[in-house]
Amino acid sequence: MAKNFATREENYSQWYNDIVKRADLAENSAVRGCMVIKPYGYAIWEKMHDALDAMFKETGHSNAYFPLFIPKSFFSKEASHVEGFAKECAVITHYRLKNDPDGQGVVVDPDAKLEEELIVRPTSETIIWNTYKNWIQSYRDLPILCNQWANVVRWEMRTRLFLRTAEFLWQEGHTAHATKEEAMEETERMLNVYATFAEKYMSIPVIKGFKSPNERFAGAIETLCIEALMQDGKALQAGTSHFLGQNFAKAFDVQFLNKENQLEYVWATSWGVSTRLIGALIMTHSDDNGLVLPPKLAPIQVVIIPIYKSEEQRQAIGEKVDILIKKLKAKNISVKYDDDDSKRSGWKFNEYEVKGVPVRVAIGPRDLENNQAEVARRDTLEKQTLSFDNLDVEIEKMLDDIQQNLFNKALKFREENTRKADTWEEFLDILDNQGGFVAAHWDGTPETEEKIKEAAKATIRCIPFNNPLEEGKCIFTGKPSKQRVLFARAY
Amino acid sequence: MAKNFATREENYSQWYNDIVKRADLAENSAVRGCMVIKPYGYAIWEKMHDALDAMFKETGHSNAYFPLFIPKSFFSKEASHVEGFAKECAVITHYRLKNDPDGQGVVVDPDAKLEEELIVRPTSETIIWNTYKNWIQSYRDLPILCNQWANVVRWEMRTRLFLRTAEFLWQEGHTAHATKEEAMEETERMLNVYATFAEKYMSIPVIKGFKSPNERFAGAIETLCIEALMQDGKALQAGTSHFLGQNFAKAFDVQFLNKENQLEYVWATSWGVSTRLIGALIMTHSDDNGLVLPPKLAPIQVVIIPIYKSEEQRQAIGEKVDILIKKLKAKNISVKYDDDDSKRSGWKFNEYEVKGVPVRVAIGPRDLENNQAEVARRDTLEKQTLSFDNLDVEIEKMLDDIQQNLFNKALKFREENTRKADTWEEFLDILDNQGGFVAAHWDGTPETEEKIKEAAKATIRCIPFNNPLEEGKCIFTGKPSKQRVLFARAY
Repeated sequence: MAKNFATREENYSQWYNDIVKRADLAENSAVRGCMVIKPYGYAIWEKMHDALDAMFKETGHSNAYFPLFIPKSFFSKEASHVEGFAKECAVITHYRLKNDPDGQGVVVDPDAKLEEELIVRPTSETIIWNTYKNWIQSYRDLPILCNQWANVVRWEMRTRLFLRTAEFLWQEGHTAHATKEEAMEETERMLNVYATFAEKYMSIPVIKGFKSPNERFAGAIETLCIEALMQDGKALQAGTSHFLGQNFAKAFDVQFLNKENQLEYVWATSWGVSTRLIGALIMTHSDDNGLVLPPKLAPIQVVIIPIYKSEEQRQAIGEKVDILIKKLKAKNISVKYDDDDSKRSGWKFNEYEVKGVPVRVAIGPRDLENNQAEVARRDTLEKQTLSFDNLDVEIEKMLDDIQQNLFNKALKFREENTRKADTWEEFLDILDNQGGFVAAHWDGTPETEEKIKEAAKATIRCIPFNNPLEEGKCIFTGKPSKQRVLFARAY
Repeated sequence: MAKNFATREENYSQWYNDIVKRADLAENSAVRGCMVIKPYGYAIWEKMHDALDAMFKETGHSNAYFPLFIPKSFFSKEASHVEGFAKECAVITHYRLKNDPDGQGVVVDPDAKLEEELIVRPTSETIIWNTYKNWIQSYRDLPILCNQWANVVRWEMRTRLFLRTAEFLWQEGHTAHATKEEAMEETERMLNVYATFAEKYMSIPVIKGFKSPNERFAGAIETLCIEALMQDGKALQAGTSHFLGQNFAKAFDVQFLNKENQLEYVWATSWGVSTRLIGALIMTHSDDNGLVLPPKLAPIQVVIIPIYKSEEQRQAIGEKVDILIKKLKAKNISVKYDDDDSKRSGWKFNEYEVKGVPVRVAIGPRDLENNQAEVARRDTLEKQTLSFDNLDVEIEKMLDDIQQNLFNKALKFREENTRKADTWEEFLDILDNQGGFVAAHWDGTPETEEKIKEAAKATIRCIPFNNPLEEGKCIFTGKPSKQRVLFARAY
């Protein structure tokens, strides 16, 4: 059936845009770089929110809410933070409009100029640490384990729906600790939460590791990340967890009395994932027929489509299906029965395929007679005829199987697309002709990293945890190296 | 016990601020007018969110997300909307900062001036109707039933935590319909959802009614509202639902082909409640001992405090309590066991009282011997000794009883504080000396309404649904009137 959109082979980038559009996930808005997240796309974000939020709470975190605006001067307080963040951002200079004295409409009221400009938060370390200052006096006030679900704005020039937008939704955890060890543990704990979420809910295998200094968050001592591989062979950073040391505590003078009654600066972490994950989800699993969703994040897990000619048939099918729906709901499986009379069943088959609904059940008069239904799974596009008895149990198993199959497929893809390169030529050849992760030696200097980035358009995605040590030579400078690191071209 | 804060009698306004502070709900931030919602306050908002969100979904709505920014020109498109909204707002004029060439820190980059200024949304009708234009072609695309959970900004000069802040959190529903009748039905449906939420979850009795023209939302044909009465006799608008007619469809040229294949403008509604509800919650139920929360919105419904001297006693109590906790959790009752050794039990009693935890269970060595516990309820401050057997069932009943009792108490208060006034003197006397709602005749003109507002600082809160018709004379002008309307001084 004509899907009316590009295949991955033809034009990967167009294919991505087509999926976002055809599956009704999001669209560009009238405001440059800001997206509208449509109901179906937002429902996926809600599923992600709920799963992550529960994991944050299980690990002792509470949600809170901090201001959207940050005084301009706050950004200058942490030296490296300002370099990384305060440049491309939305700046509020006035707080009032007035009727245009020379015509219609409204103009900015020049009398309502702010003394100090406000920045729409690109991230909230500064305003939060300015707040924590008042919350922390003694070690008894620690740890503080807060998370915030919020919108943030970074003035991106080249935007792509979900992957890079001026405004996006995210969560940002900000924790305060009495010791360095505790803060490092927290940084790792939250990276593990992200990795578990990516693998168990999104069915996306991820590599956990350290960012190289050039790729660290502005203001972090250490940035941990999870990296995923997309079907076009480009990497995507799916989540980061930062050990901020005492940088923000020093910038905002946040000290506490420790158990020995001595003043000490507080240790910090921050960690976040964003609506970008929806982009990762699309690019990991979807195919030329449309979106493919892992069941745990699918707004509709099962769609049931009746096939009938007469109203009598429709009713008979409806009655049969009612029982199935009740059983599925009792298993917490979300199900949609689409008996909309104004659409043909062929149109519906196509529509739910494009929208990535994991399981489709079709039932016609003959199925009714034979007490069976046709069940199709979105991941493999396989169809089978199953007995109506026990169908809820079969569907439940199938959903679990799809969840696991998507992960396995993505893992196999990543394994097949992780290669070693020992020379510069080999390195470029892999990047240009095969893509994927390239494990290569690097001399460990930021200068070389920068030069490689310029020459090959590839960055160090991470230095994996438990990376095996191995003597070698930097692919770019030939200088000695103790370990391979993972390079890739990336989103 | 010294609570360290004002009583309602002494200084109602200070009492409110003290509760917000001492119960750890929120605080002012470094950004004028913007608040920090602290974890305990945010947990109440999460409870509100979850309950409302489920009700929105049950009534067929989906969540979506629209841009934070709105092009300035959008506000001018709906004439009355611009008058009501576009004036006091945060205006973005630039999109970049740069290092200060003359010194330290950062300055606004004059080269990064926006061609058209962007406004931080004070409400989203304009950007949403500009979006709906692309979603709607035919009657088959209708209705659209979207809701958005978001932050909005209105540049308020005099702010109070939760009640009036520059930035606040809210939900805004925006629906599009093919007929006027359907839109009116939706407007009423959502007002009823709000009323049910207020009464069943917040235990706040509300009066449902129509706003007078002066008090309508900017751009609405009809504004429905729920009005609540606070303990100081001032009214508080707790939620509004607007019938917008075709105003926004006309402003943004949103037409659809109806079943007769004729182009028609789309009918609209919008409706919202905000973090202001937390202010209403505080002011309706709390007392001079601190916050009082209805169980359905309490982040912690039951706190259990062990009273012990030896570690052995503590362990024995802990074991006994474990069983109770399991039983309570099985009933979906949130429970906290506070055996923090660094705090005295007296301190804990006070702390949870200030924080409004509905039920407190205390258990000491003698209780253990007698298989009993001391159970205190926050609403009446009554204590009783109850057997440990069946304690979970007793607590569950008690929570239901507290929920209902708070509602009954608030309803009684409102009934006692709703009075009729037939003369201007009587009207002023009630407002000045008793407060509450005043049912009085009004000649129905906006001019008189405005004059009454100036002279008495009271506004028409609403014209109640099913208001009895009654011949009378306007308390201000003496002109004939067909019905009494509800006046009050208000937040």
